[in-house]
Amino acid sequence: MSLTLVIGDKTYSSWSLRAALALELSGAPYSEQLIALNRPETRAQILQHSPTGKVPLLITDEAIIWDSLAIGEYLAECFPAAQLWPQERAARALARSACAEMHSGFFALRSHLPMDLKRNQALAEIPADAMADIQRVCALWAECRQRFAQAGGFLFGQPSLADAFFAPVAARLRSYQVALPAEAVAYVETIYQWPAFQRWYQAAQEEHLA
Amino acid sequence: MSLTLVIGDKTYSSWSLRAALALELSGAPYSEQLIALNRPETRAQILQHSPTGKVPLLITDEAIIWDSLAIGEYLAECFPAAQLWPQERAARALARSACAEMHSGFFALRSHLPMDLKRNQALAEIPADAMADIQRVCALWAECRQRFAQAGGFLFGQPSLADAFFAPVAARLRSYQVALPAEAVAYVETIYQWPAFQRWYQAAQEEHLA
Repeated sequence: MSLTLVIGDKTYSSWSLRAALALELSGAPYSEQLIALNRPETRAQILQHSPTGKVPLLITDEAIIWDSLAIGEYLAECFPAAQLWPQERAARALARSACAEMHSGFFALRSHLPMDLKRNQALAEIPADAMADIQRVCALWAECRQRFAQAGGFLFGQPSLADAFFAPVAARLRSYQVALPAEAVAYVETIYQWPAFQRWYQAAQEEHLA
Repeated sequence: MSLTLVIGDKTYSSWSLRAALALELSGAPYSEQLIALNRPETRAQILQHSPTGKVPLLITDEAIIWDSLAIGEYLAECFPAAQLWPQERAARALARSACAEMHSGFFALRSHLPMDLKRNQALAEIPADAMADIQRVCALWAECRQRFAQAGGFLFGQPSLADAFFAPVAARLRSYQVALPAEAVAYVETIYQWPAFQRWYQAAQEEHLA
């Protein structure tokens, strides 16, 4: 099957990172098409592929899939042996709830601490609503890891779509130097030790932006 | 399996409606627990069940699922014979993209035309960003129905989670008397003729709000 992932700048595009990590989890070969964001021609370039004018989207032989969560579900179906979701149904339900919460929420965190993989600097002050989002994220990570990860590590033990969805949050918390409970610090470190994340992160460091 | 759906007011809670329609599609018996919204005690009542303080959530023997999309996926897995998603993989990928787009977007439509099933009155003016959302929704409905619905009707022929996700939008377009292309009018009528939607709609008409 031919798989092409259309993404934005690796430094900034957190939703592209989620889809790329889902593809890395699948183990399938894929090609990447990067559209530089925030340029006059960006929207027209994306609209050539996507009905919504947003990235990421996954182009396959049979479909164009224009959302990161739908991309994750599609890959989980196509590559069942790769176990993109936890195998136990109750764990899978929790993982999907967590991904869906990320997908539809955490707006204060997303707007006040946008992903910037080249950044290493604290905000002067974290607004209260963003701090509430951060506390909720940390509580969610702690719940998942205490119930499912056993020796720590990824949210459900083995890396899954839930980690793909929260990796950009881990990156924000480190790059904005947010003070965190030890439990959350350990999870952020798990993400930074994940080879699939490291490849993207390194590419972002070498990326020349307009 | 015991299934309890925790919802908000039927008149207003569009995400609760989505989850309830998903349950109706499953055919499984379930009980309903309604928490009145917009009251001083609302948030505390929801937090008794949900980590996010939001409805809907589905309580089962094995898990608490706190998001409408995760509820849909869970029910699709538990009741495969009910075919909550389209059976063909490419159609399913499109259906999931559409649901995910609804789940994470259309903010102007949602904020300027909040669901109110007792309403039957146009806005003085529809803001441009809400109108852009409406045009995108109509284009998406037309694409799905032209490709998959054959004789019109539901987005993918048989009622699916995609219809559960867009039923609250259909209700908004009718209750705010939005002028629509004939194609979209036909889809709105399909939703209003759907018995599962009619049951919720009727209950909303009889609901006494604080």
